[in-house]
Amino acid sequence: MQRRIIGFDPGLATLGFGVIHCQNKRERGGNYPVSLIDFGVIKTPAHQEMGKRLCTIYEDLHTLIEQFKPDLAVAEKLFFYRMGNVISVAQARGILMLVLAQEKIPLVEFAPPQVKQALTGYGNANKVEVQNAVARELDLEKIPKPDDAADALAVALTAWFDDDIVPKQ
Amino acid sequence: MQRRIIGFDPGLATLGFGVIHCQNKRERGGNYPVSLIDFGVIKTPAHQEMGKRLCTIYEDLHTLIEQFKPDLAVAEKLFFYRMGNVISVAQARGILMLVLAQEKIPLVEFAPPQVKQALTGYGNANKVEVQNAVARELDLEKIPKPDDAADALAVALTAWFDDDIVPKQ
Repeated sequence: MQRRIIGFDPGLATLGFGVIHCQNKRERGGNYPVSLIDFGVIKTPAHQEMGKRLCTIYEDLHTLIEQFKPDLAVAEKLFFYRMGNVISVAQARGILMLVLAQEKIPLVEFAPPQVKQALTGYGNANKVEVQNAVARELDLEKIPKPDDAADALAVALTAWFDDDIVPKQ
Repeated sequence: MQRRIIGFDPGLATLGFGVIHCQNKRERGGNYPVSLIDFGVIKTPAHQEMGKRLCTIYEDLHTLIEQFKPDLAVAEKLFFYRMGNVISVAQARGILMLVLAQEKIPLVEFAPPQVKQALTGYGNANKVEVQNAVARELDLEKIPKPDDAADALAVALTAWFDDDIVPKQ
């Protein structure tokens, strides 16, 4: 079984994405079972109206999904830790959930400690430890930039690690 | 000058709307310068996935805008008073802002005290006082139901009262 997973780090100003191609671990047989396809960010300028920024996100997300044709989408669960931000993040996240439903791509969500646990083996890992794990798993020489893209790859990899999400044959 | 204003009370489970037709007050000349066109709610069931619920809201909002062809949309500014709710309300509100931008309908927002002030003359009015004012302004025998629709009509009327929004000739 092979699949393409797209991870997202949703935000209004910067929405990170990362796409990986993966095989079930048990099919490994010497080949490295996960590889990077692409990563990047959708950016919207702060001076624009909210509606226009959400339109850009809507259109760019549809383009991404049509380009990469993922089998599965993954995002971090929204936490409340930065309150000033929560409304704009939730609005952008609403657009992400809309587009995925329109494109019929299933979405799974992980809490931040689950991502840290999956990537590093412990739920209190810091950002750099998680990013180093992303680079190591995907056999990259450098940590992907910007952080939003690295975070998106981290949630995509979490789904790959997760037995319930990518079931073993 | 005449215009159609659509007011919204955005929420995930119930999104209220209310459409009014209004003339500039100075053109009154004996005729009542504002009238009700329609009101109602978009409902999405709690057992459905978030993405599917946002799809329903997206499609129904496009249908509403195409049916009523408003010149202006109005919504209350999002306040933080019910925290458990804020993410789902903000996600639904993101869809509203997206659809209005796609349909090129300008959106204005008022804080709740502005709506109370406009409808009743004081910013601390309670819900029933605001609803009674809605019924009185629109010459209705009963308060529109459900509350989400009455609240949507209240914000639509606030825009009509607002000199900056519906400029006098």
